[in-house]
Amino acid sequence: MEHKLEDSTALLRRTPAALNALLRDLPESWTASNEGENTWSAFDVVGHLIHGERTDWMPRVERILNFGESRAFDPFDRFAQAKQSLGKTLPQLLDEFASLRSANLGKLGALNLRSEDFGKKGQHPALGVVTLSELLATWAAHDLTHLHQISRVLGYQYRDAVGPWKAYLGVMHCTGHGA
Amino acid sequence: MEHKLEDSTALLRRTPAALNALLRDLPESWTASNEGENTWSAFDVVGHLIHGERTDWMPRVERILNFGESRAFDPFDRFAQAKQSLGKTLPQLLDEFASLRSANLGKLGALNLRSEDFGKKGQHPALGVVTLSELLATWAAHDLTHLHQISRVLGYQYRDAVGPWKAYLGVMHCTGHGA
Repeated sequence: MEHKLEDSTALLRRTPAALNALLRDLPESWTASNEGENTWSAFDVVGHLIHGERTDWMPRVERILNFGESRAFDPFDRFAQAKQSLGKTLPQLLDEFASLRSANLGKLGALNLRSEDFGKKGQHPALGVVTLSELLATWAAHDLTHLHQISRVLGYQYRDAVGPWKAYLGVMHCTGHGA
Repeated sequence: MEHKLEDSTALLRRTPAALNALLRDLPESWTASNEGENTWSAFDVVGHLIHGERTDWMPRVERILNFGESRAFDPFDRFAQAKQSLGKTLPQLLDEFASLRSANLGKLGALNLRSEDFGKKGQHPALGVVTLSELLATWAAHDLTHLHQISRVLGYQYRDAVGPWKAYLGVMHCTGHGA
């Protein structure tokens, strides 16, 4: 599947509603639990998605368009949500994510990107040269990686409750595939 | 996390809406694509969830309540959806899943299960003795295993589009954990 802007935005538009439908008012025994020390709960993951909307995706799109490879992206703080989500409820985070995502997709649309833009290059601080097309595809795939994680973290909470069925449930055997 | 009926039903109620928000009218390049020969697309997975609502979960609850261990569950056909989804659209499947799930949760509620029921035992054709509590937990965890799978199958379609970011995206490194 080649990258197409409309495919990526179709997914990016849907993620906040999907997470909202899954997580809003789900008991905290699911949403506040993680997989052990130094792992994330569903609540933490939504905070991470919010931080990405604020500091990562659209700022990097703009960096490529304005500076090309001459100015590398700012590194992404993958632990910022611990502070930023403090004192908030999950419904608040879900609302915040939906609102930021919607505003970012509005900004992206207003750029009126043309086919010749997608090959434009930027500089990732660790990965080196990347294209605008790869950045947009990664924004969408990053949603999927965290939906994958959330389903795993929720599943983990039932690892004992399912008894012998654990053998058949793929999600129970996933230990994550983090870099 | 011990199994509680209200936790399982909270999740079971949310899955159809979450899948609807994620998949309805998403381009077919995402939803009709699988991970290669003998693997499932998101469309196939929703068909599988429908088949479970029709033949697996509530019939097994009733089997335990009516027959205990004396009559084993009917085996679950994990490939039935290929025929049953034929000629249907994904929005039709999403509607069908939501409607069957809602009806099944209605039936489950009408059973007025009490705490002493959850330890009741049934006979799984391959796993042996299982409890009603384990069956109900597995129904919910089975939703999560397929949400995990759908996010992986969608992510797989962008494995090339993300370029070097693939290294950072856990979902791209998941190959499933099927039994």
